[in-house]
Amino acid sequence: MTLHITNDVDATLNSIIEGGNYNVVIVLVDTNTRRLVLPLLPCLSNAHIIEITPGDDNKNLVTLSHVWSEMVQCGATRHSLLVNLGGGMVTDLGGFAAATFKRGIDFVNVPTTLLGAIDAAVGGKTGINFNGLKNEIGVFAPAKAVIVSTIFFPTLPEKEFKSGFAEMLKHAMLHSHDSFDQMLSFNFQSIDYDLLLTLMKESLLVKQNIVEQDPTEQNMRKALNLGHTVGHAFESKALDDGKPVPHGYAVAWGLVVESVLSHIMLQFPSADLYTLARFVKENYGVFHITCDHYDQLLDLMRHDKKSQNGEINCTLLKECGKPVINNTIKEDDLKTALDIYRDLIC
Amino acid sequence: MTLHITNDVDATLNSIIEGGNYNVVIVLVDTNTRRLVLPLLPCLSNAHIIEITPGDDNKNLVTLSHVWSEMVQCGATRHSLLVNLGGGMVTDLGGFAAATFKRGIDFVNVPTTLLGAIDAAVGGKTGINFNGLKNEIGVFAPAKAVIVSTIFFPTLPEKEFKSGFAEMLKHAMLHSHDSFDQMLSFNFQSIDYDLLLTLMKESLLVKQNIVEQDPTEQNMRKALNLGHTVGHAFESKALDDGKPVPHGYAVAWGLVVESVLSHIMLQFPSADLYTLARFVKENYGVFHITCDHYDQLLDLMRHDKKSQNGEINCTLLKECGKPVINNTIKEDDLKTALDIYRDLIC
Repeated sequence: MTLHITNDVDATLNSIIEGGNYNVVIVLVDTNTRRLVLPLLPCLSNAHIIEITPGDDNKNLVTLSHVWSEMVQCGATRHSLLVNLGGGMVTDLGGFAAATFKRGIDFVNVPTTLLGAIDAAVGGKTGINFNGLKNEIGVFAPAKAVIVSTIFFPTLPEKEFKSGFAEMLKHAMLHSHDSFDQMLSFNFQSIDYDLLLTLMKESLLVKQNIVEQDPTEQNMRKALNLGHTVGHAFESKALDDGKPVPHGYAVAWGLVVESVLSHIMLQFPSADLYTLARFVKENYGVFHITCDHYDQLLDLMRHDKKSQNGEINCTLLKECGKPVINNTIKEDDLKTALDIYRDLIC
Repeated sequence: MTLHITNDVDATLNSIIEGGNYNVVIVLVDTNTRRLVLPLLPCLSNAHIIEITPGDDNKNLVTLSHVWSEMVQCGATRHSLLVNLGGGMVTDLGGFAAATFKRGIDFVNVPTTLLGAIDAAVGGKTGINFNGLKNEIGVFAPAKAVIVSTIFFPTLPEKEFKSGFAEMLKHAMLHSHDSFDQMLSFNFQSIDYDLLLTLMKESLLVKQNIVEQDPTEQNMRKALNLGHTVGHAFESKALDDGKPVPHGYAVAWGLVVESVLSHIMLQFPSADLYTLARFVKENYGVFHITCDHYDQLLDLMRHDKKSQNGEINCTLLKECGKPVINNTIKEDDLKTALDIYRDLIC
């Protein structure tokens, strides 16, 4: 996989297409990226277009099946290219469609959201939701290339932007206390896109280093799950309740709960915990839960892909920059952490 | 992938299960293998059973989706094992289900048919049919282990047995003239199962050598497609006509047509062509076509996964043991070959 971090997206994509000698080029878009983003990329003006409905609740087998059918209709072969142009939903589903079409064809991811750029576009994870479980079906398959830029962000809704920022915050916490501080001082009111591209680059390097050490998530890669065991449970609960929340918001709240757990189990500094909780409350608001929801949340965490033997497994931090993978979480500790989360930000 | 060629199936499978420390063991069977084969393997007596309906026309998204759902129901995690116990339909679909469940869990293939043992169980190809196209959706994913034996064959219908034998014949033709001769003298009336296990071992070694050189079918592995470009077209036509034929029978007929092409294009010896045609006619009967079917067949071949730019691509032979991959076939040559095929065996 080649990672391009550049705002010259059209030229970069064009040279990948020209260099690949593909017989058919297909671009996967959703309703929004077709309208707002596709016109910015003249190199795709002759590509076959497959359009899907946006939204994580459409990241399912019905949409996947539609994409496969359209690929057949376009006459795609093993020597064709799929360009995934969209957020994480498009790159996850499109990556899986490409990785399984005729046992795998080339695909290029062009993430159009900050979340997509940070979370979904690098690392080779592809997949769909199934039976209400997030990313339950998928494969590890590296994109041929990923083109990361900020040119699509100025029209992004604030929520989308902050959602991606939460994943960068996670990488910063995995990397060092300095990175953590830098992220917490970011100015959302007047976004400096040049600074942002630099921060994105650092963030993706943190991720890429970890992924390269462990592409199929046997050990170190689990560090990237920081915030996600609890975050996914919040996200699934919200979906079940018919009030979906952005993925990154769930991760931000998950980071708070897992930082509490880190404090309880590994003496993560309480000062950092308080700073984090204040930042999250200020920028992401509150995910309201009561103790009546604890059993449901614990059950969702036991179904997490990272869990084993029905035990809940989290990556935690001794301090920023010192992750510890494979912590088995006791139910009581988790309930205590949820209590403290409610005290801190509810 | 570890290949076990042994008639001590239960002990071998048991040691894989014990050694893997799996939290959940699931066995995928079809209606037939549940009744006839599962009782022969006491090591699976505590496994969760997922049963599907046999037949290539059930190797589809509906069945796959059912298997995924059952895996969720069983509480399968990344540390669970799926044992695929059946013919190629079960190992192909089960392998794909396992390779995509939570982005991939361990699976073991226990082929119960000769075709499954030779064609489907080794080589890491998994997948399902889609939109009437065979194996259109799938991934390359190696089984953790494959256990090949002859203990399930005595109850196999003759057609099933001969179907698998055609794939062995293909490997023999790829390997050497001696192997080709040995296969043509096999006695179907009174099967020597010890001799058969030895021949299977040789056949699988031919295949494994090729697959190891080229796991994702970029070049040499295409040799294994001998007989299959035409064979798949016959098989698809038969399916479209509502009169499905066994895969290996289609391959046997495909071997005849592609040997004719080999003769036309690469001077494959006519004596071997006649011997092959006689053997196929005697043991596999005739797949009737007329010149009215040629366009339909050519169209199916252009949709083959191996085709590129709408051209028809075949592996051919200079002689037994000397395959040549990536031959582009002219329409006229193919029509001539189909004419000669009809003269030879219709």
